[in-house]
Amino acid sequence: MKQLHVELGDRSYPIYIGPSVMSNTELLQQHIRGQQVMVVTNETIAPLYLQQVTQALAGKTVAHVILPDGEKFKTLSTLNLVFDALLEKRFNRTVTLVALGGGVVGDMTGFAAACYQRGVDFVQIPTTLLSQVDSSVGGKTGVNHAMGKNMIGAFYQPQSVLIDTNTLRSLPDREFAAGMAEVIKYGLIADVAFFDWLEANADALMARDEAALQYAIAQSCQTKADVVAQDERESGIRAILNLGHTFGHAIETATNYTSYLHGEAVAVGMLMAMDLSQRMGAVSEQDCKRTRDLIVSCGLPSLSPKGMSQETYMSLMAVDKKVLDGSLRLVLLKRLGEAYVGNDFPPAALEATLGSFCHE
Amino acid sequence: MKQLHVELGDRSYPIYIGPSVMSNTELLQQHIRGQQVMVVTNETIAPLYLQQVTQALAGKTVAHVILPDGEKFKTLSTLNLVFDALLEKRFNRTVTLVALGGGVVGDMTGFAAACYQRGVDFVQIPTTLLSQVDSSVGGKTGVNHAMGKNMIGAFYQPQSVLIDTNTLRSLPDREFAAGMAEVIKYGLIADVAFFDWLEANADALMARDEAALQYAIAQSCQTKADVVAQDERESGIRAILNLGHTFGHAIETATNYTSYLHGEAVAVGMLMAMDLSQRMGAVSEQDCKRTRDLIVSCGLPSLSPKGMSQETYMSLMAVDKKVLDGSLRLVLLKRLGEAYVGNDFPPAALEATLGSFCHE
Repeated sequence: MKQLHVELGDRSYPIYIGPSVMSNTELLQQHIRGQQVMVVTNETIAPLYLQQVTQALAGKTVAHVILPDGEKFKTLSTLNLVFDALLEKRFNRTVTLVALGGGVVGDMTGFAAACYQRGVDFVQIPTTLLSQVDSSVGGKTGVNHAMGKNMIGAFYQPQSVLIDTNTLRSLPDREFAAGMAEVIKYGLIADVAFFDWLEANADALMARDEAALQYAIAQSCQTKADVVAQDERESGIRAILNLGHTFGHAIETATNYTSYLHGEAVAVGMLMAMDLSQRMGAVSEQDCKRTRDLIVSCGLPSLSPKGMSQETYMSLMAVDKKVLDGSLRLVLLKRLGEAYVGNDFPPAALEATLGSFCHE
Repeated sequence: MKQLHVELGDRSYPIYIGPSVMSNTELLQQHIRGQQVMVVTNETIAPLYLQQVTQALAGKTVAHVILPDGEKFKTLSTLNLVFDALLEKRFNRTVTLVALGGGVVGDMTGFAAACYQRGVDFVQIPTTLLSQVDSSVGGKTGVNHAMGKNMIGAFYQPQSVLIDTNTLRSLPDREFAAGMAEVIKYGLIADVAFFDWLEANADALMARDEAALQYAIAQSCQTKADVVAQDERESGIRAILNLGHTFGHAIETATNYTSYLHGEAVAVGMLMAMDLSQRMGAVSEQDCKRTRDLIVSCGLPSLSPKGMSQETYMSLMAVDKKVLDGSLRLVLLKRLGEAYVGNDFPPAALEATLGSFCHE
């Protein structure tokens, strides 16, 4: 088992990575301060893991709420189901919420914890690769709005995160690949040595080799923790974690969150950001090709949705959170392994990138 | 004009109290950092003040959203109307929300600001006496849930608060009286000299004498600011601000938020807390009589709702946020001018208090 520490002053917390950590009573209960526990999960995950987590919570007053599964249920009204469950049990400010599931469950549970009685504790047990390397660090919680993704939320840190690598054994290939997109992202934005390691170890990872998984997850969480520690509330550097996300959010919104998984949309978005960076002379054609090859070898898409137009991209990207007072800001690369946020791209270069990705 | 400073480290902010402060462009714009402004108000307040606030915001990109008026609309779905308006305008993280209205508008606008894109600025222009002396200090924001008041929310501080005493000229007598309940509360919990002053100046206040109003508002805000500065997130002493609120919330819930204004319910609740404190030997019958006389002289009720039973009180009070791991905690008085939070009351004394207030 590996252990990391996310350093955020009085909001610091540990991350445990290894097989069976969710069944480890001592580990799980170590960061639960009160007697009341509400496990929040979804209908896909509950049959797989709810029983073992409930068993590991022996001695506590445990209840659970099972949400419908899917990004389209990441809404204020689904969130209200968590509040209903908490109030039906009359759970008070001492309750700890346990998020058992992927990113949607984690984001909603964290936001419910941020808001219930103006803030209660929560513990994360992310069950997908994506949520293990992304939402388990950084404290971004929230829900979507019909007009945009993650528009409603809070910065709120968990008490601890338990990443059980056993969950990756049952994770469908497509979801595993979607998580790999974020893993690759950490190499691209901050760690060229890790990018090299990923190229060399892509096969071991895709075969879900335990040692390779633990290394890749720990490395990803550490890079994210380092960035977040510098800028918890995303006033600056933290935005580099959104490489590919502005394009990716536009893809997800245009396809109504049904055709592309988040990581798949980000994979395409990262290639678009690389393409734009290459047009600006910052990375080479070879860098773009290496990235595309790694993405494809992980079973990820590299193409924009058929029929999605440049106009659709521009309109959807305009509402993205990274627009500051009217000027579109994007995460771009200075070089492979180093990202920045800027609006210094020539509009014609962005048009050319969109033109080269958009297809009928 | 009076000016106070609420000291909360990097979340400190000023409060301005005086006539016409909401029309003062310099004062209003001083704490608005970006170009985009969304004024959130309700259908009662909009015809009275929206135009002058919009004029005072000249030079900014100003939009507004008009919510239905009333505590029953303090819900997640009304909150969503604010998010709809923000996203329709494509307002980004640099937007400032301006809360123009009473406590409901202030609580919802503050919570919307806490959640929109994970946190944007807001400025409060409270237009009722209650909101001026209560929600303008302390950063409690949120909405109600069908199963309990203020169950969903956040601690979130404004950039500034503008208390325009002109608004008290048009405030209906009943709402003015409801605000007086909270003013009296500050005397009871922390400032016996202020309680004496209120007895001596009740007539001037009820006649809405400008100097008396400014003094009473400033004194109330200062006492609240002092308490909040000691305990921003209500882990201890801050809870004394809830004198009468646990009983009061039960009254509001039992009457479905329709018969009693918040301040009216709190007035009755404070008398119940005083009665219980008197049964415990902490305050005298004379203290109770003085408080009852002051409350009645301000046009506030002193009776529990007809037909509301002891069992209803106990059941509704059990879900109140002040219940910690099963034991009911109440704000009680040590003496006139000093409150504490405890569960040290004999159950029989609480029963006797409920018994003496409940009536058919």
